[in-house]
Amino acid sequence: MDNDRPKSFPQGEQLPVPYELASLHAHQEYSLVQVGGISIGGSKPAVVAGPCAIENMKQALSIAWEVKRLGADLFRGGVFKPRTSPYSFQGLGLHGLHILGEVRLETGLNTVSEIMSIAQADMMMKYVDVLQVGSRNIQNFELLRCVGQMRKPVVLKRGFATTIEEWLLAAEYILSEGNDKVILCERGIRTFEPYTRNTLDLSAVALLKTLTHLPVMVDPSHATGLRELVIPMARSAVAAGADALMVEVHTNPETALSDGRQSLYPKQFEQLMQDINLIAPLVRNKRDSRNESVGVSPALLSA
Amino acid sequence: MDNDRPKSFPQGEQLPVPYELASLHAHQEYSLVQVGGISIGGSKPAVVAGPCAIENMKQALSIAWEVKRLGADLFRGGVFKPRTSPYSFQGLGLHGLHILGEVRLETGLNTVSEIMSIAQADMMMKYVDVLQVGSRNIQNFELLRCVGQMRKPVVLKRGFATTIEEWLLAAEYILSEGNDKVILCERGIRTFEPYTRNTLDLSAVALLKTLTHLPVMVDPSHATGLRELVIPMARSAVAAGADALMVEVHTNPETALSDGRQSLYPKQFEQLMQDINLIAPLVRNKRDSRNESVGVSPALLSA
Amino acid sequence: MDNDRPKSFPQGEQLPVPYELASLHAHQEYSLVQVGGISIGGSKPAVVAGPCAIENMKQALSIAWEVKRLGADLFRGGVFKPRTSPYSFQGLGLHGLHILGEVRLETGLNTVSEIMSIAQADMMMKYVDVLQVGSRNIQNFELLRCVGQMRKPVVLKRGFATTIEEWLLAAEYILSEGNDKVILCERGIRTFEPYTRNTLDLSAVALLKTLTHLPVMVDPSHATGLRELVIPMARSAVAAGADALMVEVHTNPETALSDGRQSLYPKQFEQLMQDINLIAPLVRNKRDSRNESVGVSPALLSA
Amino acid sequence: MDNDRPKSFPQGEQLPVPYELASLHAHQEYSLVQVGGISIGGSKPAVVAGPCAIENMKQALSIAWEVKRLGADLFRGGVFKPRTSPYSFQGLGLHGLHILGEVRLETGLNTVSEIMSIAQADMMMKYVDVLQVGSRNIQNFELLRCVGQMRKPVVLKRGFATTIEEWLLAAEYILSEGNDKVILCERGIRTFEPYTRNTLDLSAVALLKTLTHLPVMVDPSHATGLRELVIPMARSAVAAGADALMVEVHTNPETALSDGRQSLYPKQFEQLMQDINLIAPLVRNKRDSRNESVGVSPALLSA
Repeated sequence: MDNDRPKSFPQGEQLPVPYELASLHAHQEYSLVQVGGISIGGSKPAVVAGPCAIENMKQALSIAWEVKRLGADLFRGGVFKPRTSPYSFQGLGLHGLHILGEVRLETGLNTVSEIMSIAQADMMMKYVDVLQVGSRNIQNFELLRCVGQMRKPVVLKRGFATTIEEWLLAAEYILSEGNDKVILCERGIRTFEPYTRNTLDLSAVALLKTLTHLPVMVDPSHATGLRELVIPMARSAVAAGADALMVEVHTNPETALSDGRQSLYPKQFEQLMQDINLIAPLVRNKRDSRNESVGVSPALLSA
Repeated sequence: MDNDRPKSFPQGEQLPVPYELASLHAHQEYSLVQVGGISIGGSKPAVVAGPCAIENMKQALSIAWEVKRLGADLFRGGVFKPRTSPYSFQGLGLHGLHILGEVRLETGLNTVSEIMSIAQADMMMKYVDVLQVGSRNIQNFELLRCVGQMRKPVVLKRGFATTIEEWLLAAEYILSEGNDKVILCERGIRTFEPYTRNTLDLSAVALLKTLTHLPVMVDPSHATGLRELVIPMARSAVAAGADALMVEVHTNPETALSDGRQSLYPKQFEQLMQDINLIAPLVRNKRDSRNESVGVSPALLSA
Repeated sequence: MDNDRPKSFPQGEQLPVPYELASLHAHQEYSLVQVGGISIGGSKPAVVAGPCAIENMKQALSIAWEVKRLGADLFRGGVFKPRTSPYSFQGLGLHGLHILGEVRLETGLNTVSEIMSIAQADMMMKYVDVLQVGSRNIQNFELLRCVGQMRKPVVLKRGFATTIEEWLLAAEYILSEGNDKVILCERGIRTFEPYTRNTLDLSAVALLKTLTHLPVMVDPSHATGLRELVIPMARSAVAAGADALMVEVHTNPETALSDGRQSLYPKQFEQLMQDINLIAPLVRNKRDSRNESVGVSPALLSA
Repeated sequence: MDNDRPKSFPQGEQLPVPYELASLHAHQEYSLVQVGGISIGGSKPAVVAGPCAIENMKQALSIAWEVKRLGADLFRGGVFKPRTSPYSFQGLGLHGLHILGEVRLETGLNTVSEIMSIAQADMMMKYVDVLQVGSRNIQNFELLRCVGQMRKPVVLKRGFATTIEEWLLAAEYILSEGNDKVILCERGIRTFEPYTRNTLDLSAVALLKTLTHLPVMVDPSHATGLRELVIPMARSAVAAGADALMVEVHTNPETALSDGRQSLYPKQFEQLMQDINLIAPLVRNKRDSRNESVGVSPALLSA
């Protein structure tokens, strides 16, 4: 096992950075990831919304129509659920994928769902437009290579205790297989603070915009675990420069099979969309700020 | 020593919350802290700017005039500096206070500076308008009681590893001495991530607005340690609902005696002011969002 | 994704504990895991030793003969290496397994090696006597189920930021597939402290002996990352009640392909064996202390 | 405020280490701290025992006689209690000091108690033989200088999130005032793990023995918060090379005013004394291991 000691910024002779394909320096411009007609990484933040888990056709369709009506770009819903306990609800599996397919057919929304193993790759290819690699698999290198070979867009969630450098190197596994459609998703890190589920690290978002050309997404739902904090943290994420958001929305959170406590009501999601659509245009043109940032080498950052 | 195990949200019979004077529930409306003609906690974010340390009269005055011209509300500058090593520059002390007094006289800016011990209280009363209690003193209870008795506005910085509950209880020490002019300042917590100096916890800002009536300030300079991140994190903080910002600005960061790496150039500070003045009006009326929040008891938050 | 907020001890009506098969309460006596003629979990601590990575036949055999001569019970050596970067040495793979097979044949030492994916299962069955699941795969649930079905003894390493409860639930995945030969291996957690590679959590070892019947191993090499600390931490682990140790030993650490900095010289390993053989008999009879512990329910622990 | 980013080991030109007076390199032999007839830092671990807080004369005397009978070297008991909440029991203050004086007079045990402020210095001089600086005051530099000038032995507890380097620099504040009688006390750091109160960092103990000449103490009571873990962690601490232990003992923990859950019954303390007296002689001669360590420069440690 190689060294898991968190690394400082590379300095002097240690340059270039170890994540060559992911680095902004090598690429020189920000990447756009296209999903259907949606661009992730452009001037308007893309919004992925939906329930934590697909529960049944009716639930999925009703939420999908709601979030579409309110402006969501993509529909999310878990069908293979990573569960801490072997005795918890593990997701609907293939049946859930069929539901995702139906949602796409009926609403026209492209779909995002988590892939947990190589064995699911063939099934996912058919029904899912964006593959999500979850926090628990951030260093499941075989799965990273697999999604690299699948060539579909990938949302790569940061692990509970993954450094920014390790996260970029996990992206590098996918990129090095020839798939450059990687979206990095900040979803909170584990700290000593018990009031929130995790600690959302928005500095990482701003820092990533100086280090990598890949689009950056933020998931305020899993980060905070508290519905009350999702709207302000969504605003905050966009203000920090996030290219996309992933939020949990449920028409009936009280009965949700998982994570109801952090799911927005549709009315709250509407508010969120209004808020971020006001803020996004005010975030200074990223291409300009990139030009400033490109001049800042990691070596200088650590000086 | 009482139990330092981080506590979950109080539930059921454990209510009411342990920070009675600080709680929003007890107070029912957000507090305004007045400093000279400046209101902290109102509709416009207040901005505290200046160098990390006061170095000499010329440096202090030139920075003060610059930040005043660009819209800062208060001038900050350390004269008693908490230093990890006994061999590092410890600040100008009383001479630095004289400089702060001169800055106030010439520019009309009220001053913010850190108090490290009771022995400094008399000196501080004369030259400093807002007392800062630093992260290292978050549980220096004698100092908390002292600033409580001084009745001046206090900026209470969160400690490196202080939970939100412990922070509110530290505020409670000040409040219980009869001083209700407390401003909570988030400045980053210590985590495993080595790229940033600390991890800025903006969820704490949004959560505090549901728990306490006290104004909340954010210091993106100490939180990140990197100049490049200060502007995006300032935007983010305002979008999260922060009532005030504290930022380090230096006319010549390369020669700064401390923290030059995180100090903004005046031109960057100008950009920051433009950015936050655009975003602040878009953050939904806090009084409205409070009304929603007040209905959410901590017991429900942890359900 | 289910809730990743660290959980407090279960209280009152939340009992029984969620890791039913792993719990000491349900099992009532400590389990022994047998590997060849070696018992893990008995009165004498078992010692697993060898290089971080298998490099070639000569290196593997020379280290194996050395550690056997000095009293090691099992030989460890990685052939599939989880690497943070896709560009780092990834292990010898199948060729490495052949070397492990040869080491076993010549020295008679049973072998321990990491399995990273289901695709490696068939190969591993033939050459490896104890499967190791690495920290990065602690919540790779598919792999956990796979090693559950393989029915070989499993060393389950704690993740970088895995709580004790999550770790026991990961073990529960393996146990629930019918494989009860699980050994929990503490290897350090990620904290803010930069001097050591990780922070070795020996309280977890003592606490596990009150919560589970599974044997507990400690890896002081990965935990500290510093050769100087391996001997004292090995002593400490045994004194805390560890049933087994895993240590990296190399005949030529300076040229090791990975982790040379934390590998012991054979002479140091000899000292380690002497030290722990003196301390182990003094650790009060575990069966006795268990009897005390069994009376302590998790509910009381959190009172 | 100077940079609070955790520092890596000093390398190359950054040597010498910043804690010159505390460094083993500069001092070349381990220091002994004498308290009455007791040596801390010698071949036998010194044991400090007593209640968390002094409650009344009868409680203090009965516990003191018990721990003396069972082999404790020094008596601990808090009279000024740092409390997270202003509404909690704050200790008996001067009356508690009188009790400590009486305990010393009657039992002959020297006393250890926490000093929280300079205002307490005169009172403490009379009744307390060893001053304790608590975790919350690890960077209360004024208090550090004060105990430096008092010239009494000082137990310096590590802060919740204090790095080893910051801790040694806090000791340096005391040493630089001319007081070389400093004992470093590891008491657990704050991490994500919720089952234990803190995470006891025993690697720090072994590492300190390579970095500093100052004696190292371990407090397993505050570190774990669970009585069941105190004996195994005390054994572990001695096996790691600790020179001293501080443990909470109470004749009636159920009624203790604070921290009853982690206090040992006298019968358990007796077991602890037996255990450590068996293990201590087996820990290889520290002077020998020092000689090995002295050859290892911090620069090499980080290579």
